[in-house]
Amino acid sequence: MDQKKAPIYDRMLEHRSLGTTSFHVPGHKAGVGLDPLAIDILQTVMSIDLTELTGLDDLHQPEGIIREAEQLAAGCFGADHTFLLVGGSTVGNLAMILSLCEKGRENLFIVQRNVHKSIIHGLMLAGAQAVFLTPQVDGATGIAAGLALCDIEAAIRQYPSAVGVLLTNPNYYGMGIELDAIIDCVHAQGKPVLVDEAHGAHYGFHPDVPRSALAAGADGVVQSTHKMLTAMTMGAMLHLQGNRIDPSSVRRHLSILQSSSPSYPILASLDLSRRQLHLHGRSLLDKALEAVYRLHQGMRQMPWYQLVELDTSTQAYNTLDPLKLTLSDRTGTLGGFELQHQLEQHHCYPEMADPNNVVLAFSIATREQDMDRLLHVLLTISTEFSLDKQQLAGPAEFAKIRCAFEYPTISHPVQFALYTNQPTDLAPPLTTLEVSIEEAVGHVAKQVITPYPPGIPILYPGERVSAETAQQLRVWVRSGARIHGLTKNGNMLVN
Amino acid sequence: MDQKKAPIYDRMLEHRSLGTTSFHVPGHKAGVGLDPLAIDILQTVMSIDLTELTGLDDLHQPEGIIREAEQLAAGCFGADHTFLLVGGSTVGNLAMILSLCEKGRENLFIVQRNVHKSIIHGLMLAGAQAVFLTPQVDGATGIAAGLALCDIEAAIRQYPSAVGVLLTNPNYYGMGIELDAIIDCVHAQGKPVLVDEAHGAHYGFHPDVPRSALAAGADGVVQSTHKMLTAMTMGAMLHLQGNRIDPSSVRRHLSILQSSSPSYPILASLDLSRRQLHLHGRSLLDKALEAVYRLHQGMRQMPWYQLVELDTSTQAYNTLDPLKLTLSDRTGTLGGFELQHQLEQHHCYPEMADPNNVVLAFSIATREQDMDRLLHVLLTISTEFSLDKQQLAGPAEFAKIRCAFEYPTISHPVQFALYTNQPTDLAPPLTTLEVSIEEAVGHVAKQVITPYPPGIPILYPGERVSAETAQQLRVWVRSGARIHGLTKNGNMLVN
Repeated sequence: MDQKKAPIYDRMLEHRSLGTTSFHVPGHKAGVGLDPLAIDILQTVMSIDLTELTGLDDLHQPEGIIREAEQLAAGCFGADHTFLLVGGSTVGNLAMILSLCEKGRENLFIVQRNVHKSIIHGLMLAGAQAVFLTPQVDGATGIAAGLALCDIEAAIRQYPSAVGVLLTNPNYYGMGIELDAIIDCVHAQGKPVLVDEAHGAHYGFHPDVPRSALAAGADGVVQSTHKMLTAMTMGAMLHLQGNRIDPSSVRRHLSILQSSSPSYPILASLDLSRRQLHLHGRSLLDKALEAVYRLHQGMRQMPWYQLVELDTSTQAYNTLDPLKLTLSDRTGTLGGFELQHQLEQHHCYPEMADPNNVVLAFSIATREQDMDRLLHVLLTISTEFSLDKQQLAGPAEFAKIRCAFEYPTISHPVQFALYTNQPTDLAPPLTTLEVSIEEAVGHVAKQVITPYPPGIPILYPGERVSAETAQQLRVWVRSGARIHGLTKNGNMLVN
Repeated sequence: MDQKKAPIYDRMLEHRSLGTTSFHVPGHKAGVGLDPLAIDILQTVMSIDLTELTGLDDLHQPEGIIREAEQLAAGCFGADHTFLLVGGSTVGNLAMILSLCEKGRENLFIVQRNVHKSIIHGLMLAGAQAVFLTPQVDGATGIAAGLALCDIEAAIRQYPSAVGVLLTNPNYYGMGIELDAIIDCVHAQGKPVLVDEAHGAHYGFHPDVPRSALAAGADGVVQSTHKMLTAMTMGAMLHLQGNRIDPSSVRRHLSILQSSSPSYPILASLDLSRRQLHLHGRSLLDKALEAVYRLHQGMRQMPWYQLVELDTSTQAYNTLDPLKLTLSDRTGTLGGFELQHQLEQHHCYPEMADPNNVVLAFSIATREQDMDRLLHVLLTISTEFSLDKQQLAGPAEFAKIRCAFEYPTISHPVQFALYTNQPTDLAPPLTTLEVSIEEAVGHVAKQVITPYPPGIPILYPGERVSAETAQQLRVWVRSGARIHGLTKNGNMLVN
């Protein structure tokens, strides 16, 4: 296949060049009807904001340019089937889970606990069961990363009827594990491994970047092409390989979940992003990694900032994305959210923060001048807060607030459902209470509670709230994190 | 509230003007990383393709600019609560249905049969039941439009446990009914009415355009803001009024279905579209309707084309969207798909076709020169095919192919589920057969079968295939329509 082609984007340009008159949706008519004040920003994209016209194919039953773009993407990423997504990795995760479920079965999945909330939403939509495996926690940072092989082995033995294993790799901080051994173990039992690789669309395209989940043998992989590559936001891909997942079932569920009027600019940007990665990925990553190297060199002059670097002493992860930087203040002066605020005051916007850390996301578009600005701003902040004049706390002290999850290694099965008013069909309806985080201890959570970012749920509906969990939640709230699932008053809904 | 504001768009511009450096997703870094060949088209929109940064709010828990934009939209459209949607009317329909369902109940809805497939997908996701009401069919065109009040009354009496009524109004052709009496009847039983008003986002903003579903009292209304107004594709809104639908339940289900990284360009375009409609809607519609008037005048010179005009002799509809034009060839020379093809050859792209008709969608952006071009092209086609020299068939003859649905007025309840391998939990799995449309007669459909456009399912999983339905399907296939749900070989999956 000719990876120099971008069939969707090329066809959009061709249609645009015809000088057609639109008697179809969208109503902006190639941007003509746009608010004149917004013409500068939105009119050119609207010139390719088309719909399923003759020759423009149909995302839900692709036979033309979209099919060709999906085949090119499959070839580029090493998949047997690739689905272009306009609803983000979210719909990819939902569809992967739904496509493995069957009516009348328990549909039990073995699930890494620190998954993105869309995995849990998929379990809810499917009415599936989950056994959660607690990830290993990195001692130096308190960050939850990958699963231990022995935990997977034990869970597979304990739940031989499981329909599959759901992993997230790498995590939001770029920490991950080599998946080969885990995947081999699961495949030995004939089960598929689904990997949410939202943060790793660039994996495998440079020797200094970790290998991809597909290369490690994963059966289904979801990638946010917009995160580290150059697609528009909500542009993502779902890749399949092997015969453990039925592509037609995936397509059917995507048709249910995704808009019947998908965005062509997003589809075209996925097509462009794949072409760019295939043709120029190596050289673009070379440049981006040079910029990262320059940053790391500069950071050596500011030892009061702690960087997460690949640490052979930890078992929590053994791969680290060089395009993510996790940064904290070793003097203890600025917490993660404060450091984020200071960076923003100087117009450097990080990806996210947690109570300790700020996470910066680079990409194949990151340039040396971005790093120079960042170094300059970090130095300015150092001076403003006299970080350079203070004693440095050791990692053990600085990482006082741990994100460790206080759960058993292998949880009991949790039954998910969309409607959580009643724990089972037979039990009487339970009263829903709104209580403070303190009062919630001992009650059963009624909603997913997710600090966001990083979007890792720490409580699932049906799980009992432990004192440790409540304590963690209070720390997040006090640190200024945004917590999804709390009420307006910062309370919790419980049974 | 100040409808001159566009809080989301304004904040995007403000962020853009700060000259920030992005250490966050998306990876294109405001378009810097884009394929150089695509800069002209996509770079400016990428400058506002941001993510949930500080100050940019959170679609799933809005407290800032998105909340303000939603409140302004509610004020503009006359709702109590409005939700901005980035997944199209599709996710609005899914969330409306899910938000009314409760675990352990039958969750039976009374459903207009000619709904968009996303309504059926909502029933499947919810595991709900549906009783289908056959719409009235317009004798002149064979097009299915609105429900009869007496059918709603009978269904409500027959199914007093129904949780709500699901209507689509107007249909794809712009035909609709005044909903007040139906809504009053359903409200008298304390039940909510949900209206898929995807094609009517402009309704109520000009005296020559039909009234809106919200004005008629509907409890939940979904509108495709991109279709007749000027938002980007996938931009839509869900409006609620009254207290029969819980806004927090709708928000929860939207959070499950929509991307956790929603597209800010789409959100901003919704915001701009609302502001434009509120401030200039009347005058923009004045101009568009003048253009429509000019078109209708011109069409009088070409009596061999039949236009659908508001027809007081039909009971199938009593409102007609002036921004839709349904056109057919009265000489019988060109079927709908052929006429569509001819228009496209002359670079006029219609919205859709059926075996008889071509449907043209105008919008508030349609201008007089568009209509002049259309008239010119229609005249050219007339000459090419000598339409002006042929005998005109009467409506009765010309409309030989009817789209009438051969179903009982009120169907038996159909149980929907995501997994249709088994009709019930207890029955043994049924073998799935792939058979030709002819052979499918008497079997039970396993997939939704939808001619697309207009996207109205004519078979639902669990329904038995009648001879009349098979005959209809063959007509569509022969006419060149695209049929979702058939196999690659044009066959059907049945049990």
